[in-house]
Amino acid sequence: MLLGRSGRAAGALLTGARQHARNHAGSARVDLRGIYPPIATPFTPQEDVDFRKLEENLHKYAEIPFRGLVVQGSNGEYPFLTEEERVEVVKAVRRSLPADKLLMAGSGCESTRATVQLTEKMAAAGADVVLVVTPCFYKGKMSSAALLQHFTKWADCSPVPVVLYSVPANTGLELPLDAVVQLSQHPNILGLKDSGGDITRMGLAVHRTQQQDFQVLAGSAGFLLGATASGAVGGVCALANVLGREVCELERLCAAGRWEEARALQHRLIEPNAAVTRGLGVPALKQAMEWFGLHGGTCRSPLQPLTQAETQQLRAAFSCNGWL
Amino acid sequence: MLLGRSGRAAGALLTGARQHARNHAGSARVDLRGIYPPIATPFTPQEDVDFRKLEENLHKYAEIPFRGLVVQGSNGEYPFLTEEERVEVVKAVRRSLPADKLLMAGSGCESTRATVQLTEKMAAAGADVVLVVTPCFYKGKMSSAALLQHFTKWADCSPVPVVLYSVPANTGLELPLDAVVQLSQHPNILGLKDSGGDITRMGLAVHRTQQQDFQVLAGSAGFLLGATASGAVGGVCALANVLGREVCELERLCAAGRWEEARALQHRLIEPNAAVTRGLGVPALKQAMEWFGLHGGTCRSPLQPLTQAETQQLRAAFSCNGWL
Amino acid sequence: MLLGRSGRAAGALLTGARQHARNHAGSARVDLRGIYPPIATPFTPQEDVDFRKLEENLHKYAEIPFRGLVVQGSNGEYPFLTEEERVEVVKAVRRSLPADKLLMAGSGCESTRATVQLTEKMAAAGADVVLVVTPCFYKGKMSSAALLQHFTKWADCSPVPVVLYSVPANTGLELPLDAVVQLSQHPNILGLKDSGGDITRMGLAVHRTQQQDFQVLAGSAGFLLGATASGAVGGVCALANVLGREVCELERLCAAGRWEEARALQHRLIEPNAAVTRGLGVPALKQAMEWFGLHGGTCRSPLQPLTQAETQQLRAAFSCNGWL
Amino acid sequence: MLLGRSGRAAGALLTGARQHARNHAGSARVDLRGIYPPIATPFTPQEDVDFRKLEENLHKYAEIPFRGLVVQGSNGEYPFLTEEERVEVVKAVRRSLPADKLLMAGSGCESTRATVQLTEKMAAAGADVVLVVTPCFYKGKMSSAALLQHFTKWADCSPVPVVLYSVPANTGLELPLDAVVQLSQHPNILGLKDSGGDITRMGLAVHRTQQQDFQVLAGSAGFLLGATASGAVGGVCALANVLGREVCELERLCAAGRWEEARALQHRLIEPNAAVTRGLGVPALKQAMEWFGLHGGTCRSPLQPLTQAETQQLRAAFSCNGWL
Repeated sequence: MLLGRSGRAAGALLTGARQHARNHAGSARVDLRGIYPPIATPFTPQEDVDFRKLEENLHKYAEIPFRGLVVQGSNGEYPFLTEEERVEVVKAVRRSLPADKLLMAGSGCESTRATVQLTEKMAAAGADVVLVVTPCFYKGKMSSAALLQHFTKWADCSPVPVVLYSVPANTGLELPLDAVVQLSQHPNILGLKDSGGDITRMGLAVHRTQQQDFQVLAGSAGFLLGATASGAVGGVCALANVLGREVCELERLCAAGRWEEARALQHRLIEPNAAVTRGLGVPALKQAMEWFGLHGGTCRSPLQPLTQAETQQLRAAFSCNGWL
Repeated sequence: MLLGRSGRAAGALLTGARQHARNHAGSARVDLRGIYPPIATPFTPQEDVDFRKLEENLHKYAEIPFRGLVVQGSNGEYPFLTEEERVEVVKAVRRSLPADKLLMAGSGCESTRATVQLTEKMAAAGADVVLVVTPCFYKGKMSSAALLQHFTKWADCSPVPVVLYSVPANTGLELPLDAVVQLSQHPNILGLKDSGGDITRMGLAVHRTQQQDFQVLAGSAGFLLGATASGAVGGVCALANVLGREVCELERLCAAGRWEEARALQHRLIEPNAAVTRGLGVPALKQAMEWFGLHGGTCRSPLQPLTQAETQQLRAAFSCNGWL
Repeated sequence: MLLGRSGRAAGALLTGARQHARNHAGSARVDLRGIYPPIATPFTPQEDVDFRKLEENLHKYAEIPFRGLVVQGSNGEYPFLTEEERVEVVKAVRRSLPADKLLMAGSGCESTRATVQLTEKMAAAGADVVLVVTPCFYKGKMSSAALLQHFTKWADCSPVPVVLYSVPANTGLELPLDAVVQLSQHPNILGLKDSGGDITRMGLAVHRTQQQDFQVLAGSAGFLLGATASGAVGGVCALANVLGREVCELERLCAAGRWEEARALQHRLIEPNAAVTRGLGVPALKQAMEWFGLHGGTCRSPLQPLTQAETQQLRAAFSCNGWL
Repeated sequence: MLLGRSGRAAGALLTGARQHARNHAGSARVDLRGIYPPIATPFTPQEDVDFRKLEENLHKYAEIPFRGLVVQGSNGEYPFLTEEERVEVVKAVRRSLPADKLLMAGSGCESTRATVQLTEKMAAAGADVVLVVTPCFYKGKMSSAALLQHFTKWADCSPVPVVLYSVPANTGLELPLDAVVQLSQHPNILGLKDSGGDITRMGLAVHRTQQQDFQVLAGSAGFLLGATASGAVGGVCALANVLGREVCELERLCAAGRWEEARALQHRLIEPNAAVTRGLGVPALKQAMEWFGLHGGTCRSPLQPLTQAETQQLRAAFSCNGWL
């Protein structure tokens, strides 16, 4: 069913990305529909990755109807992990993840060559799909042409299908829509995770790629209803680490066309979602996870624990919407 | 400072606006549901207001199931009109407008006193509702407290119900949501026209004002479906000046819960809408109006006519979506 | 479109402003060197212009070696005044101002036609020079071409010489340098007041207009030394309303090449300047004026008085630099 | 003379940052005055580091009166290099650099722990001073408190003195001035490289740290004169890779108080500087190096070579100022 994984087996003797693309084009696309928590990375008090706590979280997630997990997204603090740690975390998730769930791993780096290399390691470590963020340090030079070349090279070389990732709040850069449309024609590019929250842009991305079976994922639970109404097929939602069942339920209501119920649920999720994302960030996500029976804990420095006032603000975002 | 609901009981001695508010509270709220074109202002070659052309446009609009018209919004080039011209245009529209359509007139000025004065003139000229944009020149000082005071004073004094207006692309300022929520309790404030396009914010505005019968209008056709799915009751859409029937049809499909059809229509409207709003602005709106049998013409200086390349770009936005 | 220098020869048939420009070209340019306070507008408790207090301020200013005054700049709350009030204030200043001081009056409006009309009234009211801010409501459409046309028309028509004004903190728009360079060739355009604080841009403006005797004025006391070192000829400085002698002394030290002393003085002015401009704005400027024996008072709504905490912060900015 | 290096020798038996700080505090500060090119990293056609070309560049630079070199700054494409490559480049520079020149090495990473580790490696590889950029991926959470903790931990642990680095064009984040002032009290923090170009801020940084012998370096040649006039002690200037003698001459003129000559030279450097920095970026810097007899070559992907139009634009920036 999952082309990425079976395709990988069949592809053992093939070389080169074009070969891959040819194979890929001849078979079914990976179906991305559904909800993915971009999982947090628990640390020990010494700031080392705590693999035991990670596994315990994965056991909890196994009971929730997620389509899969995103590993090493922004909420996984990937910029703070070494390359080795990033790969080890993917391996650990692979060991625990039920076979019917997708493992989508972040492998974005600033340079094209590092991105290609890490993508290969992620695939070898068990990723079904890789997700690559826009490079951003030289943001003034990340023209459509530069980004097209970067993502095309990466998609050409990746042993597994890939998903584009635009997250302007972190990168200060939005992947231009024209580049998205061109990249949608690449046989190894499945879709786009868009965390910018611009519903008009998401609708247009769906519209302009309708010939390509290109799948758009909302990058946040705050606009999941609007995105789905506009044609997105699911979401990668930080809040799903905390309120996983509820976010899945929202997606299910939308998919079933039960918009009134969906709206009521969506509305109650906006404030908790804002608090754990742009409002208070990863430290808040990890704090809220603790309240809901998951291991969150502290972040790596320089990310700071919440102040007392921030913790109260976070709690209020959940409690005044009936979640705590 | 805000007139609470109970404050309305002790209205015996109130005069003017407070009297109005009391009266208003005793009767049905104005129902804003539906689509409003923010009409353009046609000029003669000498850049004077062309009232004849304006009237001809209004005759065309009378055949379209609009809920009403917005007069002297951003697309009406109000910052280029004198106060007298602004009032004259409202009078002219009043004369032509069928009685069952709402006339919503923009009366925003930078100072509170000027806003109050112009609001009174607009009401006297026949406006059913007035719309006031956030003051913005001193944007660094437009705190929630300052905006609350401004809009409360205005709503207190207005002889007709009022609608808040947030349009950050022009003002560089978003009306803070906390201020919106507080202002929603004012008996004379009907709702908010939000042109920012942030669907999460619009959903939250609906959610946090659900006790107040507060009505949110999408400020653009590009996110009308998403906004409606999130609880908006209609839209003030520049594109409705050009594709009025189609925008009304989109709103009708959403209201009827026919989301699949709505989505297909919404997608075809995004690019034309972007072209006549943030892409190429009012000159493009007026050019497109000419193509669709309405009087657009040139803008007042310093707004420039489209270049040839821009005109082609505008045409493509309509033609590649099947509208031309 | 721009009147070239040679274009001035064929002036036989010119009338009005072109005639003026021709005349002007035949005589000495107005020398702008020096410091100008952009004067505040005092109001009565009813928010009417308080002409008596204004006059008392002018008497105090007469003792300070200013080059002149800017009337109806951003610090004069011009967006809150009616056109009539703006002209009346200029007339009042003209009556009090010693003949050897320049009266530079702001006459910017959003439309070209209104700007031209108000400029004529300002000249008739006694302005020696008029200052025009970039139109900004349709900021997305204020291309170099649009701004060139706007400022050229205005400079063509103005009976007195004119100065360009770029203040991005208020307008969200910077007058593009290419437009500045082209406009510098206009015989009736004397210079640029640049409040953006980008010293590189100011240096380049001086460099690229060196053939035109174009005069650049720093728009704030915070970067007066750096601007002067880079070739600016003086400054329009809000802080000069409060510490007028000190700002003039800073300019004198720079002009005399006494950079060590200039630097020490400049450093002590940065924090007070920041507090009365971008930090706490016009209400802080007016509060500080009160402390230094001038009439400040309250602003028109919606500008709010300082909170107690803000007042303390303002006081600290002066006291920790030895001014209070 | 250079404490960083001699202090390192004497410190062999000491452990801990406090020990270092104590030593450091008891002896002379490293004097940073002067100009530093942030050197580019030449690559082979296969995008590997070309150490031979690097060495040839260093031989050319040895003839120019630089105070030292910055290795692995933004212009060195450090985000595209592996940690090993970053260290190898520092070692290579150390081998070639005359003993009287400072080697300032960039060792910034997103996490505090990685920054500390790389700093130790850089010191071991021969860096006299290390330079650390603000972490920026989680920019919404990089409060003063977070940055204080990050930089303090790093300065505590660094075996060599350190310099703070703020470059908002790349990071989307400005190191807050309050944090700078607090950090200036750390005995191991020498100063700040500020690339933001805000001269007011730089003046205030000098003013508020005057008790601490804190040294501010301008981060670009475009505002070198203004920064020096405001109290900066030198500059890290990309343009010094191309016009090294001229940038040194500008600094010498400023230091000697010859402001008229300085201004004339400064003005001719603004456009070339803008072209190789914010205008056209590192690819332009490397192209211009080729024109001036140095090895520039291509960048690592995704940075793209200049288009033909961009190359012409770059050439014009040099030629119209008399450099080509």
